Amino acid sequence: MDALMQTSILGVVLQDLPIIPTDGGAVLKMLRSDSSLFKAFGEVYFSEVQPGKVRAWKSHREQTQMFCVPYGCMKLVLYDERPESPTYGRIETVVLGRPHAYRLLRVPPKIWYGFTPLGNTPALLCNCADKPHDPSEALRRDMQDPAIPYHWESAAQKGC
Amino acid sequence: MDALMQTSILGVVLQDLPIIPTDGGAVLKMLRSDSSLFKAFGEVYFSEVQPGKVRAWKSHREQTQMFCVPYGCMKLVLYDERPESPTYGRIETVVLGRPHAYRLLRVPPKIWYGFTPLGNTPALLCNCADKPHDPSEALRRDMQDPAIPYHWESAAQKGC
Repeated sequence: MDALMQTSILGVVLQDLPIIPTDGGAVLKMLRSDSSLFKAFGEVYFSEVQPGKVRAWKSHREQTQMFCVPYGCMKLVLYDERPESPTYGRIETVVLGRPHAYRLLRVPPKIWYGFTPLGNTPALLCNCADKPHDPSEALRRDMQDPAIPYHWESAAQKGC
Repeated sequence: MDALMQTSILGVVLQDLPIIPTDGGAVLKMLRSDSSLFKAFGEVYFSEVQPGKVRAWKSHREQTQMFCVPYGCMKLVLYDERPESPTYGRIETVVLGRPHAYRLLRVPPKIWYGFTPLGNTPALLCNCADKPHDPSEALRRDMQDPAIPYHWESAAQKGC
């Protein structure tokens, strides 16, 4: 369960998550305190996004994000703007969701990120962050900000 | 945000949760480390249940459950079998879910509980428990066990 997949951005890591079938539904694991990815518990919350909508861009000076998508399917786009990073300037795209991409994505501080549903249903992102939300350390940019070399498409695409 | 509602079972507590509307969706808060209800982080996971299905009964010797329903609508039934409890023998029914019952339910150890969706869609229960899952402290009974004075109806009922 603890096998980690590296991405093209240093520190951005994926982990496949267990889906345990039971009579009448499934149990979807997310994060345990004894996981190698767990640092600390700050806050758990959800972001629901409607088809065709984009939530971008966000970044945090200090908070580490731990994302999974327990309902629907979401495309996440990440941008490394850390001057000291060996992967500075890279864009990474990750798909999270059901049924074929149920996995955990860890996003360290100072990475820009945004997300949009794939498919024709809303998607639900869960974030179990290591610090509670603090507006003074959260950064935002417009989704069309030219400082980030990515163009968001709002057209619905195939799901997970 | 921290106003708590007591139920008919000692220690079983409800708290209304914030839903923050944004362009394209909603942000649904669940639990922060500085909440008066937070004890410790053990594990966060999801239980998805299909319409007409029941997941019951479960209980834990040591683990405290923190439930919310970020997708769909769920009926939870609780039974107090703690011999020392002033509310021993009581059944409590709680509805959690969207859009009108988005709230947190804390269930202390040694309470029996079960849940079933209301309405015609699957529902997703999130549990942010204070200890990671440990099969040696988890108890189960058949949903028709006569030791618990409750009869589960599998017919779909109106949602939240």
